[in-house]
Amino acid sequence: MAKNLVGVRGSFFDFVDDPWKFIGQEEKSARFYSDGLLVTENGIIRDFGPFEKVSQKYPNLHFTHIKNRLILPGFIDGHVHVPQTRVIGSFGEQLLGWLQQWIFPEEMKYKDRSYAREGARQCLDNLLAAGTTTCQAYTTSFAVSTEEFFEEASRRNMLVVGGLTGIDRFAPDEYIDTAQNFQRDTARLIKTYHRTGRNIYAITPRFALGASHDLMVACQNLKREFPDAWVHTHISENPSEITQLKQFHQCNDYLSVYEKYDLVGKKFTGGHGVYLSDDEFRRIAKADAAITFCPCSNFFLGSGMFRLGRATDPEHRIRLTFGTDVGAGNRFSMINVLDEAYKVGMCNNTMLDGSIDPRNQNLPEAERNKLSPYRAFYSLTLGGAHGLYLDDRIGNFEVGKEADFVVLDWAAGQRAIAWHESLLVGANGPQTMDEAAQLLFSIMILGDDRNVDETWIMAERVYQKTVSEQTASARK
Amino acid sequence: MAKNLVGVRGSFFDFVDDPWKFIGQEEKSARFYSDGLLVTENGIIRDFGPFEKVSQKYPNLHFTHIKNRLILPGFIDGHVHVPQTRVIGSFGEQLLGWLQQWIFPEEMKYKDRSYAREGARQCLDNLLAAGTTTCQAYTTSFAVSTEEFFEEASRRNMLVVGGLTGIDRFAPDEYIDTAQNFQRDTARLIKTYHRTGRNIYAITPRFALGASHDLMVACQNLKREFPDAWVHTHISENPSEITQLKQFHQCNDYLSVYEKYDLVGKKFTGGHGVYLSDDEFRRIAKADAAITFCPCSNFFLGSGMFRLGRATDPEHRIRLTFGTDVGAGNRFSMINVLDEAYKVGMCNNTMLDGSIDPRNQNLPEAERNKLSPYRAFYSLTLGGAHGLYLDDRIGNFEVGKEADFVVLDWAAGQRAIAWHESLLVGANGPQTMDEAAQLLFSIMILGDDRNVDETWIMAERVYQKTVSEQTASARK
Repeated sequence: MAKNLVGVRGSFFDFVDDPWKFIGQEEKSARFYSDGLLVTENGIIRDFGPFEKVSQKYPNLHFTHIKNRLILPGFIDGHVHVPQTRVIGSFGEQLLGWLQQWIFPEEMKYKDRSYAREGARQCLDNLLAAGTTTCQAYTTSFAVSTEEFFEEASRRNMLVVGGLTGIDRFAPDEYIDTAQNFQRDTARLIKTYHRTGRNIYAITPRFALGASHDLMVACQNLKREFPDAWVHTHISENPSEITQLKQFHQCNDYLSVYEKYDLVGKKFTGGHGVYLSDDEFRRIAKADAAITFCPCSNFFLGSGMFRLGRATDPEHRIRLTFGTDVGAGNRFSMINVLDEAYKVGMCNNTMLDGSIDPRNQNLPEAERNKLSPYRAFYSLTLGGAHGLYLDDRIGNFEVGKEADFVVLDWAAGQRAIAWHESLLVGANGPQTMDEAAQLLFSIMILGDDRNVDETWIMAERVYQKTVSEQTASARK
Repeated sequence: MAKNLVGVRGSFFDFVDDPWKFIGQEEKSARFYSDGLLVTENGIIRDFGPFEKVSQKYPNLHFTHIKNRLILPGFIDGHVHVPQTRVIGSFGEQLLGWLQQWIFPEEMKYKDRSYAREGARQCLDNLLAAGTTTCQAYTTSFAVSTEEFFEEASRRNMLVVGGLTGIDRFAPDEYIDTAQNFQRDTARLIKTYHRTGRNIYAITPRFALGASHDLMVACQNLKREFPDAWVHTHISENPSEITQLKQFHQCNDYLSVYEKYDLVGKKFTGGHGVYLSDDEFRRIAKADAAITFCPCSNFFLGSGMFRLGRATDPEHRIRLTFGTDVGAGNRFSMINVLDEAYKVGMCNNTMLDGSIDPRNQNLPEAERNKLSPYRAFYSLTLGGAHGLYLDDRIGNFEVGKEADFVVLDWAAGQRAIAWHESLLVGANGPQTMDEAAQLLFSIMILGDDRNVDETWIMAERVYQKTVSEQTASARK
């Protein structure tokens, strides 16, 4: 028997296809083993299936038996700002004012290597405690913060995407850098970190409003020189931003700026996309690029409501990740992101049912806006991996993939969850896929990071919650 | 020295006025003692002030010293459905479909007394665990459920408002009841429960769309017969509901139905009010009636976004409570309600800054939409008490009031909160009102029910969280 074989037995839930393809029968996109066995070798999945069947092939395997839990592929956060960890949830401003008042002053501290290291540690540990095993991250305009991010991620063996975050206007002088320096530093960092260990490098112009023509050209040059590098930026987040952007770059829409510099294609992600037009959705779909939906952030800054049902229109279905967008997103947990994503869909649907303006009625789009547990957890796992062009490596329990996963305790969270769930499943936990899906819905709507019991990276447990909670009521 | 004297020492934060009156200097509405002493006698506040000063008057007082916590008046939930406790967060429908698919079938179970008792217990214990000491509650159309609600609240010594919930149309036949029976049962229940112990009775027509002319007349008769009774109902929650309502009751706006039957006045609360016109706001203000803002619910059902800045317009400032609206609201914690309320304000402001349509620019309204920690926690305490006409009894630590309060641990909640708060205060906790307010903002945006450490009713501790949480990271 091979060395480093690790077995985990438990109830597994993952996805094999896109649930938006199966309207009315979303369960066809999913896979559930109430008693399953995952076998890994050196962190890579070697076998997976019903315990009874798989265990016969490994008679001497020692395995960890995880009971009364649901095991899912690790969550993927498509959009997080490492250096905003400490100023998460800052008061009172919309995007552009918030950047100036709260964000740039904090990010400035990341030119100091030890502060940058502490920030990366805090951020990554917050992610692991939330069940997030992969993120696509912004750092700052200081190379040390990018270095420390990759170093700390490597220390945790996390598969991450990140990059030096370029901005040469629309920020304090001490924060911005020149296009030339950005190109030089990015080239060096790509050579040092891209595909070293589990690191993936993204050429990262912060956003087009913060990028001069020269900085955009630098990005274009970099993508030409390093075609395997990812590209990560913001797009169409806030109305004021869009107005200023159009004026500054003399463009008709937000996407066209990135198109102009040949950045929109495979491995491109634009964060937010709240105000994308149908035409932009079509061009993104055609380019096989991705958008990250960040509902906590879009609510917190009041940016607006992403049109999920339009992004998933089969006529121009785009690649999608979901993201926290910490620090504008106020929760590190992707479970909380699902709560808010569900609400965005429901709010959009009050327009789409035609009750306010009959001209806006669009029932197929409204159907696609409904974030079922299948669509929701697909988006955090296989869908997120697909959005990031990492579905050959992570996102589900296919043999050959890297074994990052999360162990969910469906009964954790606010006190109300237990009695609610007693309606859904018996004392032995979910026996069918439908029961498991209903529990996943209660986790996303009633739960939060408390539902994450364990987080595993490459078949090794790197986070374990140890909580003993008793609630006492003196009068009963 | 009098008997039953209870002393509590700690950091106290409460309100003496409405922070919306003090634009730019909201701290004038609040009061903070970093080292305070609260002295109660038989549950009533007898003295309150700085420890050094007050303690001299009570040399032999034994007191509980609560360290590293913020003590606030107990939270007030202006709108909760007891019989929806178990179906909290049910999937996929907007208001009218959600009622039919999920809610009425569950509420039907409450005709059984023992189920009704279990539901009341679960609901009230969830509230206490969330720091909520007073609620205004719906029961069902079955008198037993109203009885069990008051019995269980009395057992916990909670000050509650509630009533038999009348509906004679727009629900399954087995659920509705006649106007005649509703009037008879309500009259009996008022005589039994109103002002018995800490109970307050509210004449409760569920909503005008579920009430025939006869049922509305029954409510009118009841209010005439029992002018001291409260009135509680829903108003203007969802566009489809409003369209159907106008047709059914042949009215120009939602409020006019309740006005027609003489219900709108002091002690009247309408839940939601998402689509209230300026004219309706004016009439509500003139009548000195109240609206409950339920942001979790309004997002969850996609109902829409309450215009907080308009409700607080000094030209027609209405009384306001905030509410969970469980089970359409998906969190029992008023802290989560504040998170969503903040987001509603911010989303509204993207319209009001004029960046989408310059005609909508309204900066004073936008300013009032910003839910600062002062406005937020005022709304859960003194503001909520004012909205419910209970500010003579609860809402702050004034001498003579009933001592319901909550003990907040600012460092609980998601892992990210600790490092964030290290920016705001030193290791000794908040020394100034501004520091305390900043901590309150991080609780409402980053926290949840975990921040509620203890809940006290009439100077007696009825809930205490006992959590020992260690997070372990195998790799560091």
